[in-house]
Amino acid sequence: MSAASVPDPTPEEHVSLDPADWSTYRQLAHEALDDALDLLQTVRERPLWQPVPAEVRNSFRGPAPREGAGAEAAYQELRENILPYATGNIHPRFFGWVHGSGLASGVISGMIEAAMNSNCGGRDHGALYVERCVIDWCKEFFGYPASASGVLVGGTSMATLLGLAVARHVHAGCDVRKEGLPAARRLVAYASSEAHESARKAMELLGLGGDALRSIPVDSAFRMRVDLLEPAIEADCRAGLHPFCVIGSAGTVNTGGIDDLDALAAICRRHGLWFHIDGAFGALCVLDDELRSRVRGIERSDSVAFDFHKWMHVPYDAGCVLVRDGDLHRQAFSTRPVYLQGAERGLAGGGIWPCEYGVDLSRGFRALKIWFALKEHGSTSFGLKMRENCRQAVYLADLVRRRHNMELLAEPTLNIVCFRYIAPDITGDALDALNRDIVADLQEAGIAAPSTTRLNGCLAIRCCITNHRSTTEDLGILVDAVSAAGQKRLSRQLPQRVIPCLRSLEELPSTL
Amino acid sequence: MSAASVPDPTPEEHVSLDPADWSTYRQLAHEALDDALDLLQTVRERPLWQPVPAEVRNSFRGPAPREGAGAEAAYQELRENILPYATGNIHPRFFGWVHGSGLASGVISGMIEAAMNSNCGGRDHGALYVERCVIDWCKEFFGYPASASGVLVGGTSMATLLGLAVARHVHAGCDVRKEGLPAARRLVAYASSEAHESARKAMELLGLGGDALRSIPVDSAFRMRVDLLEPAIEADCRAGLHPFCVIGSAGTVNTGGIDDLDALAAICRRHGLWFHIDGAFGALCVLDDELRSRVRGIERSDSVAFDFHKWMHVPYDAGCVLVRDGDLHRQAFSTRPVYLQGAERGLAGGGIWPCEYGVDLSRGFRALKIWFALKEHGSTSFGLKMRENCRQAVYLADLVRRRHNMELLAEPTLNIVCFRYIAPDITGDALDALNRDIVADLQEAGIAAPSTTRLNGCLAIRCCITNHRSTTEDLGILVDAVSAAGQKRLSRQLPQRVIPCLRSLEELPSTL
Repeated sequence: MSAASVPDPTPEEHVSLDPADWSTYRQLAHEALDDALDLLQTVRERPLWQPVPAEVRNSFRGPAPREGAGAEAAYQELRENILPYATGNIHPRFFGWVHGSGLASGVISGMIEAAMNSNCGGRDHGALYVERCVIDWCKEFFGYPASASGVLVGGTSMATLLGLAVARHVHAGCDVRKEGLPAARRLVAYASSEAHESARKAMELLGLGGDALRSIPVDSAFRMRVDLLEPAIEADCRAGLHPFCVIGSAGTVNTGGIDDLDALAAICRRHGLWFHIDGAFGALCVLDDELRSRVRGIERSDSVAFDFHKWMHVPYDAGCVLVRDGDLHRQAFSTRPVYLQGAERGLAGGGIWPCEYGVDLSRGFRALKIWFALKEHGSTSFGLKMRENCRQAVYLADLVRRRHNMELLAEPTLNIVCFRYIAPDITGDALDALNRDIVADLQEAGIAAPSTTRLNGCLAIRCCITNHRSTTEDLGILVDAVSAAGQKRLSRQLPQRVIPCLRSLEELPSTL
Repeated sequence: MSAASVPDPTPEEHVSLDPADWSTYRQLAHEALDDALDLLQTVRERPLWQPVPAEVRNSFRGPAPREGAGAEAAYQELRENILPYATGNIHPRFFGWVHGSGLASGVISGMIEAAMNSNCGGRDHGALYVERCVIDWCKEFFGYPASASGVLVGGTSMATLLGLAVARHVHAGCDVRKEGLPAARRLVAYASSEAHESARKAMELLGLGGDALRSIPVDSAFRMRVDLLEPAIEADCRAGLHPFCVIGSAGTVNTGGIDDLDALAAICRRHGLWFHIDGAFGALCVLDDELRSRVRGIERSDSVAFDFHKWMHVPYDAGCVLVRDGDLHRQAFSTRPVYLQGAERGLAGGGIWPCEYGVDLSRGFRALKIWFALKEHGSTSFGLKMRENCRQAVYLADLVRRRHNMELLAEPTLNIVCFRYIAPDITGDALDALNRDIVADLQEAGIAAPSTTRLNGCLAIRCCITNHRSTTEDLGILVDAVSAAGQKRLSRQLPQRVIPCLRSLEELPSTL
C-alpha cells in the first residue's frame, strides 16, 4: 500500500527547527566559540564581576517572544546582555563560597553533549558507558568496592538526599517505599554544628524533620566532637528514638574543617548506623597523596556525596553519590514500569539504568565533562592543584597575621581562610558592617570576591581558594585591597554605595 | 608590608589547568564544533542508533587516568568512542519514549554555559535574570499569576517531587520541615492508573509511601475516571485518612492521554486539595492555539511540572516546576544559613535565590538554552511543530489501520500511536515476543526507534512523535520496516540476534 492514499496531514511544506542555512549557522557558532574561549583566555584582564545594569535587567522583562528573532539576533542579545555578567568564579581572584573555576575542556564537552543530546536516564548507548566509567573511577578514588554503585546528580545537596534515602530505606524497619514512614519509629541522625544545611534539608524532604538531625558541637578546629557523639546516640536510644545515620563532613563550608572520619566510622559500626559523608569539596582530597590522609576513614563510609564542579573545576553542575552496597542503593529507588521495561537487545538494553539509582529519569550527559577533564589532565593534576590551594591558604593566613589591621579568625585547616579587617575603637555590629562593606566594595569593584560568614559571633571575610588560576600574587592583591577598602571606608572618603567598576588592576590603589 | 617576606608556598612555577597553548586548543575546539554541527546536519544520512561494540565498551574499563593524555588525545577518544553512539533521539525516525530532538542552538548555549560557568543557586549575576525571565514566560504560557514561582530542574520527576513537597508542607497539619511527618495524619494523594511512576517515587521519597498514592482507573481514552475520584476521596476521609493532593496527567507516557483538568480542578477546589499536574510533555500544548484547549484547566492548578527537553527540544536536561503561590513554595524549601546570607549589594545580593525553591544549591545555567530557543524560534514555532506531530500521529494511525498485518491498539489522543504487528495463528506471548523482536530489529538496524509498552495486556509498538525532524515519509518508512521485519521474522530468514547495522535506508528492503 502506498502512503499516498492517506491524506497528507501537513499541506504546508515540512520545516524542521534546524537552521535553514547551515553554513551561516555554522559561522555564527564558530564566532560564539571564539567568544566562549576569549572569556576564559582573557579573564584576568576583565573585572571579576559587575552588577547587571538596570537597562540590561529590564531587557529580561516583558512578554514571551511569540515570533522568533532568529539565531543571529538571539546570539547578539546573549553576547551583550548575558555574557559579560557571569558569577565570576572563572576569575583568578574569586574566593567566594566554594565554586570551581571551570575548564577549557568544558566548552568542548558542552557542545558535544548538546549535539549528541543523550538522555542518560537509561537504555543502551555510549553515554551510559562513559558514566559507568566515571563512577568506576570514583569507586577507585574512594577505596569503594566494585559492587558499590553511584550516580551523577546536580550537586552534593541532591547526592546527600539520595544517600540518606538509602539509609532511611535500610533503617525504617518496614517497607518504607510502600508504606511510608512508620509512626512508631522516629529516626534520628547526627551531624556537626558546622555541617552543611543540605543535610537538614534532606531530613526535611524525607519526612524525618530537621529536628531529627542532632547537631553535635565542634572542637576548635571545627570538627565534630567525637566524644559527644556517642553519648548523644545513647541518650536518643534511651528516649525511645532510633538513631540511623551519622553524617560526617569532609570540608565544612565555613572553615574547611574535616571530621575525624575514622572515629566516626568506628562509632557507626559499633551502633549499626549508616555512615554518610558530605564531602562536597573536601572528599576529592583523595586525589592527592599529601592531602589523602586528611580524609582517612572516607573509605569506610556507607555513602559519600561530593561535587566535580568545585575542586575538580568541571563546569556547573556535576555532583555524585556513591553507595557502598549497590544493591541497597538500587532497592531504595528502582522502579521499572511497563514503558521502561528493559530488553535483551536494542536501545532498551543496557542492564541496570541510572534512573534506578535516584529521582531523575531524564538526565543530561554530565559524565562527559568529567571524563574529558580526567582524561586530559589526569587525577594527579587535580590533586596537585588542591595541594597548591591549601598551601595558598597557609600563605594567605600568614599575610593576614602580619597585618596590624587584620585578624585571623580561624587557622586554615584546608583551603579556607576566615579573617576580618579591624580598626581601633570599632567593635561589634559596626565592625561586622565594616567588613560586610569591604567585601561588597571588592566585589563591586571587580577586584576580588571573597564571601562572608559568621564565626564565633563575628562576621568574617571568608576566602575559599578552590581556584586553579589563583597565584600568590592574587592573594597579595586581595589583602592589599581589603586593607585599602577598610582605610577608605574609615576615612569616609568612599561614598556608601557607589564604586566605579574597575577595568584593570592598575586602577586599584588610586581608586580605593 | 611586602608579600615577599612570606615564604612562597609554590616553589615550582604556578601552572593553571588552562591550556598551555591557547591557539592550539582553540583549533581543537573549532574542530570539535564542526563535528558537533556535522552530527546534527547529517543525522538523516546515518544510522539512528548502533550498539556500542565490545572493544569500545572495553575502552571504558580500567583504572582512572593518573597522568593526563592532553586535550588532543582525549578528544580523539571522544570522537571515536563516544560521538558515534548517542541515544539516537536527534534522528528523524526516533519515536521511542518521549525524547526531544535537540536544537542547533543548544550547541551554542552549551559552550557559552560552560565558559561562563555560572552557579545558578543564587547570588546576583546575569544567569539568574535569564532564569527569572524564562520562569516569567512560563507563568504567562500557563496563565499563572505574577506572584507564582518556579524553578528549573533536571526534569519532571524532580519537578513533581518539589510540587508534592509544597503540597505536603501545606497539608501536613504541623511544621513538617521541623517536626517531620505527623504520626496521626496519613496523607493520601490520587492519580490515574496511567500516571507516570515519578508521582509514586515522589510519594516514596517524601516518606508518604507509594500505597498512599491511590490509583484511579482510566476511561477508554486513558483519562482518569473523574466519576471515581470523588468517591475515592470520600472513602479515604471516612477511613480517617487525609486526602491532600490530586495529580493530573497532561499527556500520559503510554498513550498521550490528557485528564479532564478542568473537572479535576473543580474537585480539588471542592475538597480543598492541592492540584498538581504532571505535564512532562503535554503541558506545553499551551504553546499552540489549536492544542491549547486539550489542557484546559491547567491554569487552575496549584503546581505544574513539565520538561523543555521533550516537546520543546532543548538539549537534555531541563525541566520546571511552577507553583501558583510563590510564598508557599519558598516556605517549603527556603533556608539561608550564615554562609548563604544575602546582602543588599555585591555578588551576594539579588533578592530571592533559586536555591530557596528546591533541593539544589549548585545549579548549572539551564535557563540559557531555553531562553535562546524561545528567542530564536518564538513560542509559536514550537506550538506549530507540536501540532504537526499530532497530525502525524493521526496519519500514522491511518497508515496502520490500512495494513492487513497491523492492529491499532489505541486511537492517538495526542502524538502517540500504539499498534502491533499481527499474523494469523500467532497470539499471546508469541505475538508479544514477535513485536518485541521487531522493535529491536528496527533499532539495531538503525532504521527507526519506536519503543514498547503494554496496553490492555498486549505488548504494543509505541510510537511517540515528539520530533521536529520527522516527516510523513519517515512514518511510511517506519510502517514498511515493521511490516518487512515481521515478515522476515515469520519466514525465519532472519537470524535471532544478528542484524547488520545498515548504513543507508536504501539497504532496508533488501536486508530486512
